[in-house]
Amino acid sequence: MSTTKVAVVGASGYSGEELVRLLLAHPSAEIVCITSRQSAGRSVGEVFPRFRGLPGTSGLQFELPNPANIAGSGATLAFLALPHGAAAEIAVPLIEAGIRVIDLSADFRLRDPAVYAEFYGHPHPAPNLLTEAVYGLPERRSNEIRNARLVASPGCYPTSILLPLCPLLERGILDPAGIVISSMSGVSGAGRKADVSLLFAECNESVRAYGLPKHRHLSEIEQELSSAAGGNVRVTFNPHLVPITRGIQSTITARPSERGAERRIAEAYAAVYGKAPFVRLLGGDGPFPDTRHVALTNFIDIAWRFDDRTGTVILLSAEDNLTKGAAGQAIQSFNLMCGFPEIAGLL
Amino acid sequence: MSTTKVAVVGASGYSGEELVRLLLAHPSAEIVCITSRQSAGRSVGEVFPRFRGLPGTSGLQFELPNPANIAGSGATLAFLALPHGAAAEIAVPLIEAGIRVIDLSADFRLRDPAVYAEFYGHPHPAPNLLTEAVYGLPERRSNEIRNARLVASPGCYPTSILLPLCPLLERGILDPAGIVISSMSGVSGAGRKADVSLLFAECNESVRAYGLPKHRHLSEIEQELSSAAGGNVRVTFNPHLVPITRGIQSTITARPSERGAERRIAEAYAAVYGKAPFVRLLGGDGPFPDTRHVALTNFIDIAWRFDDRTGTVILLSAEDNLTKGAAGQAIQSFNLMCGFPEIAGLL
Amino acid sequence: MSTTKVAVVGASGYSGEELVRLLLAHPSAEIVCITSRQSAGRSVGEVFPRFRGLPGTSGLQFELPNPANIAGSGATLAFLALPHGAAAEIAVPLIEAGIRVIDLSADFRLRDPAVYAEFYGHPHPAPNLLTEAVYGLPERRSNEIRNARLVASPGCYPTSILLPLCPLLERGILDPAGIVISSMSGVSGAGRKADVSLLFAECNESVRAYGLPKHRHLSEIEQELSSAAGGNVRVTFNPHLVPITRGIQSTITARPSERGAERRIAEAYAAVYGKAPFVRLLGGDGPFPDTRHVALTNFIDIAWRFDDRTGTVILLSAEDNLTKGAAGQAIQSFNLMCGFPEIAGLL
Amino acid sequence: MSTTKVAVVGASGYSGEELVRLLLAHPSAEIVCITSRQSAGRSVGEVFPRFRGLPGTSGLQFELPNPANIAGSGATLAFLALPHGAAAEIAVPLIEAGIRVIDLSADFRLRDPAVYAEFYGHPHPAPNLLTEAVYGLPERRSNEIRNARLVASPGCYPTSILLPLCPLLERGILDPAGIVISSMSGVSGAGRKADVSLLFAECNESVRAYGLPKHRHLSEIEQELSSAAGGNVRVTFNPHLVPITRGIQSTITARPSERGAERRIAEAYAAVYGKAPFVRLLGGDGPFPDTRHVALTNFIDIAWRFDDRTGTVILLSAEDNLTKGAAGQAIQSFNLMCGFPEIAGLL
Repeated sequence: MSTTKVAVVGASGYSGEELVRLLLAHPSAEIVCITSRQSAGRSVGEVFPRFRGLPGTSGLQFELPNPANIAGSGATLAFLALPHGAAAEIAVPLIEAGIRVIDLSADFRLRDPAVYAEFYGHPHPAPNLLTEAVYGLPERRSNEIRNARLVASPGCYPTSILLPLCPLLERGILDPAGIVISSMSGVSGAGRKADVSLLFAECNESVRAYGLPKHRHLSEIEQELSSAAGGNVRVTFNPHLVPITRGIQSTITARPSERGAERRIAEAYAAVYGKAPFVRLLGGDGPFPDTRHVALTNFIDIAWRFDDRTGTVILLSAEDNLTKGAAGQAIQSFNLMCGFPEIAGLL
Repeated sequence: MSTTKVAVVGASGYSGEELVRLLLAHPSAEIVCITSRQSAGRSVGEVFPRFRGLPGTSGLQFELPNPANIAGSGATLAFLALPHGAAAEIAVPLIEAGIRVIDLSADFRLRDPAVYAEFYGHPHPAPNLLTEAVYGLPERRSNEIRNARLVASPGCYPTSILLPLCPLLERGILDPAGIVISSMSGVSGAGRKADVSLLFAECNESVRAYGLPKHRHLSEIEQELSSAAGGNVRVTFNPHLVPITRGIQSTITARPSERGAERRIAEAYAAVYGKAPFVRLLGGDGPFPDTRHVALTNFIDIAWRFDDRTGTVILLSAEDNLTKGAAGQAIQSFNLMCGFPEIAGLL
Repeated sequence: MSTTKVAVVGASGYSGEELVRLLLAHPSAEIVCITSRQSAGRSVGEVFPRFRGLPGTSGLQFELPNPANIAGSGATLAFLALPHGAAAEIAVPLIEAGIRVIDLSADFRLRDPAVYAEFYGHPHPAPNLLTEAVYGLPERRSNEIRNARLVASPGCYPTSILLPLCPLLERGILDPAGIVISSMSGVSGAGRKADVSLLFAECNESVRAYGLPKHRHLSEIEQELSSAAGGNVRVTFNPHLVPITRGIQSTITARPSERGAERRIAEAYAAVYGKAPFVRLLGGDGPFPDTRHVALTNFIDIAWRFDDRTGTVILLSAEDNLTKGAAGQAIQSFNLMCGFPEIAGLL
Repeated sequence: MSTTKVAVVGASGYSGEELVRLLLAHPSAEIVCITSRQSAGRSVGEVFPRFRGLPGTSGLQFELPNPANIAGSGATLAFLALPHGAAAEIAVPLIEAGIRVIDLSADFRLRDPAVYAEFYGHPHPAPNLLTEAVYGLPERRSNEIRNARLVASPGCYPTSILLPLCPLLERGILDPAGIVISSMSGVSGAGRKADVSLLFAECNESVRAYGLPKHRHLSEIEQELSSAAGGNVRVTFNPHLVPITRGIQSTITARPSERGAERRIAEAYAAVYGKAPFVRLLGGDGPFPDTRHVALTNFIDIAWRFDDRTGTVILLSAEDNLTKGAAGQAIQSFNLMCGFPEIAGLL
């Protein structure tokens, strides 16, 4: 197995840190460039004491997120872990320089520039790349990912919602109307930013909803659900912040579109995810997903329940928002793009 | 203001501890008897180091939960903080002895013995008392509570759900069908019991659903919602365990039954809760409820949002599961029963 | 009991919030002015959702920390919960305007301006007030506090260390040389400031030393220990940050200066603290202090152990850093200054 | 590199779970037998949902901890993660059956049966094996470990204390008298046992000392320190429980035995640990060790400070109590015993 030289652009946030963690352990990736505006000039071990002394870190120093630096490093693929907006800006010159890009921001996830403008409040900075970008959910788009120049890696909430819902909407098992989603996210999901509301003393012992009823991630959730259902889908999405560092738990309530859904759900999941290395099916009467059991892994655990009393189906999922919900998923795409085994560096 | 002598029966659990905390500070209550099977013979300060040195604790020693002991103490009212089943057993002789009872267990919350048997798995031990017992939600039943011999104080989940929903169902503002409730509870809600799944190392960094789709508390939730709606109501109730000690956050998604709900909700809440001392209305576009802001208080914070995109209403509430969801609410009933100001000892 | 009108200056931090919490419940205090540079113009309930609806909050709005505003409010006493430096600046005009001041910052805690300059890195801004200021540890200086115009309320670490150590040094029971102190503080002790190192995701699952070997609070610790011992005392002080919101636990290792210390310690503590309402003596073989048992109280719990094997004595204390370690202690001084019972509003 | 077949005996506790986690990822280990009295008959994925779907788990089922089962599995080496006492019982027949043993309990850590009896309260069950057992601290005993039949893998507290202290005592840099150690341990260190004091609601927001002044681990700490110092060493050891799941932070205060210690400490550490793959030296003026940065790794981070004011040296260390403090360290010994690279499966 050959080695791919990669750059991690914007590596000082939580997703960037997780990318570095996973890439350092990856058998076929070599980090040759790592950038961060505020950490430029410092070594990886200084910025992330956790990585001191690990193989692959010696000599690795943060640089400015300069397209020339990145191209000059010999990297043939760049992961972008930048804030929304900043990613689009650097993606264009990188792609022009022949560097493949996996973007972890929301910049290229939406097909429709009008939806982008509606949810993000300003016109899309590089609309012509939107058509080319592949929404990088490997369980659903592996072929397109393989050949992509630009992968828009999905957000943490969308991943936790799309993987349980899409196969069932696609097969017409669930009614696409009236779906209600309640999600609980760990605090790292809000990013490593100096914000009083994210202080330990503000988040500890706190559970609170936020961003509803129109959270930004709703735009990509509905885009992909609509694509799966073959028609316009609108969902109620209620996100909450809970005092854990890593993890997202999503609980989705929907209505079967016909009788026999109980059997058909199990069959659909088995058919679609039976060989998916990172989707663990906990069944219709087994244990419930638990963020603790997926933390620091690329797994998403999915369970489901029928409620005869109300005629609803409840889908439950748990993932690590920084791994399957961000960096791990991006590396899954990376593996596909480079022809490596999908699980390389992730199991 | 005179003083009422009270007993706290089963005081070594979390609800019992909270009762003791609040009663010690209550201007018109005197704890004359405190019982616990496993702590009998020990002082309050030994069992609850937090209470050492507080006025009212000297000489207070745990006794066995013996009806004769309780009656002999001079108590005219007893709070029962016992496990389900044990409460009914002791309530009968206490009431016969002329002692008024506020029961914090689920034993007397259901009107219909058949529903009790369905949800609790065995016949009700004292069905004749079910008719007499008053469901002790002071915001809805203050008159009946005032004169009750036996108050069945509501559970923590039900309180967090009934207070936001009932006024809107009662006025026909919401469609009683298709309501979806997602609740997140702190770990104290599971009780102080030696159970591996409640260990710090099992709950920390863990978010998980449990008990769905037919959690026991659903029975009283639906009983009271049906009573408010004037018809049979079935809801989807998805409870979760989150790593906080105290608090419940409930997020309720429902559908308005007609246009104009936006205005009518605000009006209904203002009318019903405008003078309720423990319901704080955060409005339709203000801050979201946060368990941290109600911890150790008897407040429940309620907010709401309209989602034009899906035509749903989202109601949100936060309360302390041990205070407004258990002991504080019980003392609110106590105040009504004794003719004290409703806020005595609680603000 | 009459009522004293007070101002809380710099009320938007954690100590300020705790002052407001306690003063709202105080039977003889009325908050007539509350200031905060960044929250000016907002109501108390907006800034602290926790306090919404509490008696005494209606109409209370944050103002700019302007000496004229404060004097004009009718306040006869001002609590300063400002950053170091800012407190001294405003204390001078307030005192000149005849307003008594209880300062929770470190600005007036040191007697010697040279020590201040050494530990705080700049000359003292108002050295003439240093002589007048009383170090406000009510268990040790109640008489001076009663008549003070300016009380320098002790810091959280010093309180947790001085209360166990001073009586034993004073009586010559412990050798003043070689004392080693290990303290663990909750994150609120670092203040409500937008600092990445205080984020939930940085503090959760983290235990780390910081600020050693010459933490700023060491200056006042040694000043007061020296005063108790009647000679120069130097201690090793090792502070740590632990993932709790509130609380400080201090573990102090010292050497008895002679035989019989075991008995003499118990006697000294009983003599000094037997009637101190907020010092709870857990003894030489009882339970260990636990921050959880003092949270949100003004108690400090003290225990001790003899280690025959090494000939050392271990003193242990726990307090709430925001209550006994800050706001509660300040109100204890306030009670003394106003002739109220020492426990008013605190038990 | 060949593969060694191993058994994990008593795998349902936290150390056992961590052994399984590490061994599943180890390139040269194959788990052929896994035992647990209470989980016998269940699969690994059932007991540890975290491990579902990982390579090496299919077909792996818990068996009873029967020496015959273990020997029959083909394992040539057994890890014992059993409670004290139970380990000795099974170690004897395993060794007799020619199976090498790495014991994670305290059963074989003490050389002197009298010290065992003093600290554990009963005579040692297999005193003749005590002489043979090697105290498995790879940084200090690699040669003996390589050839051992029985390795007594050190406890979590001892590891965090011995690694910083031993090299300095050995070289006479520190005075062996008067050493004071303050340690803070995560809750997993107390084991996965149904004990009310370990519940989330009892540990959250709690910091408390325990077990002092004569914690059981003190016996092995002093044995090894004495061996390093070449004379009897007695230390003050103050352990605390803090609300994290994993990690130990130790802060050690000692006195240099002569001038020039500042330089000599840095030199000694560099000489001893310069090539130790799991000891990271953070220096005398760099960052402080933080449990968060070593969690789930086999690293121990060590820093130190001189306090000119008191003439003391402060040594600080952080490790994951379950990895470097238990399972990781055991696998480090395993690697040495099998001739694998010391870092195999651990970096």
